[in-house]
Amino acid sequence: MKIIIIGGVAGGATAAARLRRSDEQAEIVLIERGPYISFANCGLPYHISGAIAERGKLLVTTEAGFTARYAIDVRSRTEALSIDRAHKTVTLRNLDSGEETVESYDRLLLSPGAEVLKPPIPGIGSPRIFTLRNIPDLDRIMASLGENKPRRAVVIGGGFIGLEVAENFHDRGLFTTVVEGASHILPPFDDEMAAIAHAHMREKQVELYLGDKVDHFEDRADHTIVFLASGKRIQADIIILSIGVRPEVKLARDAGLELGAIGGIKVDEHLRTSDPAIFAVGDAIEVVNKVSGKTALIPLAGPANRQARIVADNMLAADPSACKKYRGAMGTAILKVFDLAAACTGLNEAAVQALGIPYRASITHSGSHASYYPGSQQISLKLVYGLDGRVFGAQAIGIDGADKRIDVIATAIKAGMTVDDLADLELAYAPPFGSAKDPVNVAGYVASNVLDGSHDIIGWSELRDILRDAPDTIELIDVRTPEEYAIASLPGARNIELNQLRKRLGEIGRGKPLVVFCQVGLRGYVAYRILKQSGFDEVSNLTGGFKTYAWATEKQSNPDLFDYENIRQLDPAEIASRLHG
Amino acid sequence: MKIIIIGGVAGGATAAARLRRSDEQAEIVLIERGPYISFANCGLPYHISGAIAERGKLLVTTEAGFTARYAIDVRSRTEALSIDRAHKTVTLRNLDSGEETVESYDRLLLSPGAEVLKPPIPGIGSPRIFTLRNIPDLDRIMASLGENKPRRAVVIGGGFIGLEVAENFHDRGLFTTVVEGASHILPPFDDEMAAIAHAHMREKQVELYLGDKVDHFEDRADHTIVFLASGKRIQADIIILSIGVRPEVKLARDAGLELGAIGGIKVDEHLRTSDPAIFAVGDAIEVVNKVSGKTALIPLAGPANRQARIVADNMLAADPSACKKYRGAMGTAILKVFDLAAACTGLNEAAVQALGIPYRASITHSGSHASYYPGSQQISLKLVYGLDGRVFGAQAIGIDGADKRIDVIATAIKAGMTVDDLADLELAYAPPFGSAKDPVNVAGYVASNVLDGSHDIIGWSELRDILRDAPDTIELIDVRTPEEYAIASLPGARNIELNQLRKRLGEIGRGKPLVVFCQVGLRGYVAYRILKQSGFDEVSNLTGGFKTYAWATEKQSNPDLFDYENIRQLDPAEIASRLHG
Repeated sequence: MKIIIIGGVAGGATAAARLRRSDEQAEIVLIERGPYISFANCGLPYHISGAIAERGKLLVTTEAGFTARYAIDVRSRTEALSIDRAHKTVTLRNLDSGEETVESYDRLLLSPGAEVLKPPIPGIGSPRIFTLRNIPDLDRIMASLGENKPRRAVVIGGGFIGLEVAENFHDRGLFTTVVEGASHILPPFDDEMAAIAHAHMREKQVELYLGDKVDHFEDRADHTIVFLASGKRIQADIIILSIGVRPEVKLARDAGLELGAIGGIKVDEHLRTSDPAIFAVGDAIEVVNKVSGKTALIPLAGPANRQARIVADNMLAADPSACKKYRGAMGTAILKVFDLAAACTGLNEAAVQALGIPYRASITHSGSHASYYPGSQQISLKLVYGLDGRVFGAQAIGIDGADKRIDVIATAIKAGMTVDDLADLELAYAPPFGSAKDPVNVAGYVASNVLDGSHDIIGWSELRDILRDAPDTIELIDVRTPEEYAIASLPGARNIELNQLRKRLGEIGRGKPLVVFCQVGLRGYVAYRILKQSGFDEVSNLTGGFKTYAWATEKQSNPDLFDYENIRQLDPAEIASRLHG
Repeated sequence: MKIIIIGGVAGGATAAARLRRSDEQAEIVLIERGPYISFANCGLPYHISGAIAERGKLLVTTEAGFTARYAIDVRSRTEALSIDRAHKTVTLRNLDSGEETVESYDRLLLSPGAEVLKPPIPGIGSPRIFTLRNIPDLDRIMASLGENKPRRAVVIGGGFIGLEVAENFHDRGLFTTVVEGASHILPPFDDEMAAIAHAHMREKQVELYLGDKVDHFEDRADHTIVFLASGKRIQADIIILSIGVRPEVKLARDAGLELGAIGGIKVDEHLRTSDPAIFAVGDAIEVVNKVSGKTALIPLAGPANRQARIVADNMLAADPSACKKYRGAMGTAILKVFDLAAACTGLNEAAVQALGIPYRASITHSGSHASYYPGSQQISLKLVYGLDGRVFGAQAIGIDGADKRIDVIATAIKAGMTVDDLADLELAYAPPFGSAKDPVNVAGYVASNVLDGSHDIIGWSELRDILRDAPDTIELIDVRTPEEYAIASLPGARNIELNQLRKRLGEIGRGKPLVVFCQVGLRGYVAYRILKQSGFDEVSNLTGGFKTYAWATEKQSNPDLFDYENIRQLDPAEIASRLHG
């Protein structure tokens, strides 16, 4: 058995190792266009700031080490030019010598990955514009940082990689701007959740331009001007383009392999392409989103690794009945956004809405561990679920413990659990690690109450629309303390502190629907229960409380620390001190 | 509806709040023998060191605050003396005035908790011996610490509370000894996992006496001598007795309520006692262990809270068909052991063995996040599973991220997942938070391989027995590097580095079964695959590697920093500096 694998990073290298462990006799050839196999692509941004100080740490496996351990014929700096499916051969070019060779295969695995989108924006060829996808890209960025000593960085695209790059530029001491065409960064998150990251990044002195796109770039002698569609201009010393990726499908397309409707290589549940001898994994393939059942591109390392393990077994399987099934991915992901972690799994509210599925969504803010033990940090958790209780997705943002709660909910979604099951989960509790009622339990409790009719909630955007369009149609009650109310409240809200509510029911008119709210939603729920049992028929409680509403609707402004046009005249130490306080 | 709740901590207070939210009209009386309701019993040990500096923080809810919010008749310092089931009344005594009253009920909830075991050991009445279960206990300990300035603490019992107390004594600067009658501390853990905590605690200069019991205590003028069954003596300035708890069932027993076989109050799946008007929750009841199906006592705060929520609904339910079922607990738990977290869920190997169920157990050591990103810490993870792949339980110990992995596995166990499902979980990955192959995935991979016959493992204790009783019956190969081998290896092991193995197969005899091992198990697995495919029929790989074997079998010695008999002559600052380095 001779196997060729095209693409030597996550999917390809993992499959190669698994193939060897399963078959000591197979001839395995691993082709990689770049100079390194199995490098830590997820770690690249962190070398910019020095968080990962040694470049060598990014080279997880060396070619020599991999060959020694797995007896694999590794060929880096080698491009696969074409596949001859009839004769089962691949034409390869050594990118150093230019030499072309033809290599036969019994089984072929495509793991080519994805390429960075680079739209034809005028000026995009500027030498100050970079992308970041591999080690050579990183080397170019590091060289530019060393040589040109940029003071001001602009990142085009507020997705995961863009934000990681922005954070690391900032940590290196550059004043950093993120330009995002959508209304919020963090595409897998809903508005009000991403708004938490907006506020945090601006606090960190990162500038955000949201809902704005690049019109064109213009190079000047010592900087480049980014012209936005809004007419705004941003001076940049270095620019990273990070607006997304698309599957690398040229080789597959040229070979006549079937592509899917959304542009990836089409594979069956055994990860086999339309040619039975050719398999594919990783960012280049289309997969099924496990939650929605729809076809999706999910360019993440975790799914690529699991696909690689399955495909290796299937490539060696005697027949399809012995093959393992890949059941799809659900897009569980996490991002460090400065001090925050933003994690998500499954579908967000916008996605469920777009599918037209009836759903409910509730937001809770809970401590990462018992409040009386030092260091407890708030986790904001949004849960999206069906009317039958099935969990569709979740988003969590917080300084500590967001990863844990999303991993638990990702496991629950895989198991087809309901919100009642989340309420009933028995999670590890001691004061330094959690609460007797974990944030996941609390989210499950709230959702259970919503679904069994014992708690009617209203979302921030629905309430915003009412307050804007017809504020007189509801009576709005803030059940927080007078002290909290005095600091800030919603327009038109009357303050009746929860602990006074039973005594002051007579003050509340019975003509209009009531909307109650507190800071995070818990006191509002208790107030809701009192009111509903006191003859008020139409009551709802603002989910996520005033906190979520304020985050979601706040007019946030960019930091204003710099004379942008003259930033190059500033001392770098001065920039760093203004950025980091 | 008039409801009396006896016991105002976790279960009782939670039920009271839920009852009020569900029924604004009910008369609810909450009886608490102690001076405080709803205090943070799990936080008590942390006040000893000052980690929780303010005593007031432990009083989560004040009586006044609870009454104001929930309109509940709270009576602390009140003891329930007896229940008259025929007349549905409870006789109460006010512990301050001595006044006795009779209160009627429609529904009664028992949440009396558990009491500390205090066996009749000679000398146990010493004024230097304390227990820690509530705020008055803590106040007594704090008073003794302040007045007597103890230098040397002895904790009897290496369970969770005992270890928390030991850590906090140590952090306060006392030289601390733990005496445990079993062969290891951390009762829910297996030997080799608890051994990690032994090594860590001794490194922290905590003294451990394992497999030894107290024979008697003898008071001296300024200290107490703890005499152990082994004949050893320990000088103590302060002693905490923490050998376990038993359900508080006196009230229930006197009232003729049915008790279970293992000493707790017997309840049905609706948490109703043998009297239909009386319900019970918390540490005092017997529950079903969800994994084993056996009756168990699980005195933990998480289950008590969930029981409270369910019982509140059931107490108000019109009839049994409207009642919610409590399906039992699985003993998910976690403990901070100095810098480590030790977390577990479900059944350990010893428990599965005792049940006589066929099983396999494997141990992996993985990084808490990507190794190339700073701060990655090793997590040791033991997985116990059935031959059909069903996960029975897991134990994780590490500096970072053990809690997350156990919560994920607890969720998986609740869902009835298999080890294949663990391999397939899609968990949140970015370098600061995890790995593309999360430790849970890795544990699933290893277990899948074990079950599908592609990986034969041997446990440390089985190998230890072979090496002790019949070392010549196997050939032992250490596939680590010569450098690792030179530092330490197993007796009789020959070193053939993994990357040399294919070339050196001829050196290996074919007469005996082979046992291979590496540091953690991964290289051993690759070696296993090479050997099995090279004509060696009987091969097994040491699960958990040399690391687990060494931990489990190491003869660990206690720290030897002090002249115990003269410790009172030492300067406290001197003790602290020797303890904390």
